[in-house]
Amino acid sequence: MADKAAPDSARRSERSRRAILDAALELIGELGYPRLTIEAIASRAGVGKQTIYRWWPSKAAVLLDAFTAGGQAPEGAGAALPDTGDLEADLKLVLRAAVDEMNAPAYDLPARALTAEGLVNPELGAHFVDRVLEPSLRLLAERLRAAQDAGQVARDVDPRVAVELVCGPLTHRWLLRTLPLTHEYADAVVETALRGILKR
Amino acid sequence: MADKAAPDSARRSERSRRAILDAALELIGELGYPRLTIEAIASRAGVGKQTIYRWWPSKAAVLLDAFTAGGQAPEGAGAALPDTGDLEADLKLVLRAAVDEMNAPAYDLPARALTAEGLVNPELGAHFVDRVLEPSLRLLAERLRAAQDAGQVARDVDPRVAVELVCGPLTHRWLLRTLPLTHEYADAVVETALRGILKR
Repeated sequence: MADKAAPDSARRSERSRRAILDAALELIGELGYPRLTIEAIASRAGVGKQTIYRWWPSKAAVLLDAFTAGGQAPEGAGAALPDTGDLEADLKLVLRAAVDEMNAPAYDLPARALTAEGLVNPELGAHFVDRVLEPSLRLLAERLRAAQDAGQVARDVDPRVAVELVCGPLTHRWLLRTLPLTHEYADAVVETALRGILKR
Repeated sequence: MADKAAPDSARRSERSRRAILDAALELIGELGYPRLTIEAIASRAGVGKQTIYRWWPSKAAVLLDAFTAGGQAPEGAGAALPDTGDLEADLKLVLRAAVDEMNAPAYDLPARALTAEGLVNPELGAHFVDRVLEPSLRLLAERLRAAQDAGQVARDVDPRVAVELVCGPLTHRWLLRTLPLTHEYADAVVETALRGILKR
């Protein structure tokens, strides 16, 4: 009996955990951070509030787990970026994928609501940056460092600055909605950043 | 009598208007956009609510006027950017000034609160971008176009993309607080953007 009960219970727990994380992502997009509550997450997930409090201390903790566990931040998933030896092609591939993600409501709504709250709530902002954003930036910096070791990137370029040079403009368009965020834009950013603004 | 009353009245109006705009900027930084009210602005400015409603239809309208009229967005003030013929020096001057502004609480608090609200409130976001952000971006694009006409900037570079290449990274650090936003960083962004990431 115990042999059968334990896996069932683990399966139910995992199902509840998944339902809670999905509910948190849906609701942050619908309500925004200030109006999101543990009660609302519990109700949407079909669990009791105590189930949530058993695993997470706060709504912020639920949301950050939802983001990192939910495949909502695939670039940060720990896998290395493509390295075909062609830096321009590899960066375009990664940044076009980032554009697709930013334009997808399932990512845009929760990520935008969390980012907006993080701007004015420094503690949440720092957790979001550490857990969601920095892992992606570090993977890109590693790819650029590899290109530098291979002699493709200028010696005096700081890989971290180079990463922000390509990610900053995309994030700017995504968050501020200044102009359309397209594959063409991602390509133009990569080309201009790689070759520089000045006439050679 | 009328000759004396009119200027007095105009002076009082201007004093009230200035007090309302100052109060709006202070309070958005203290309370954030959702908790800011016309009542609170009136109380802080020492005027009646009706005085505010006579001039502005909403708190968003007050805030946007506060930002554009208050010298909080000096780059957008319509003046052309410096053009000494040295694009790198001119860009560094402008971006170091932008860094100083972003790090100054009098700009940071209201601009951050308005930006955060604009992320999740598309109508306010669009007004903020049109009134506060785009004028600065256009001035920078004009400066880059002049450098392109002078043969300094590569023919195939889109001046708008080039502008976002230097502004995007600064905005990224300012809003997301990933790493310190310093003059050294502004210089590194300008140098890397102008000369490019790739080895020449």
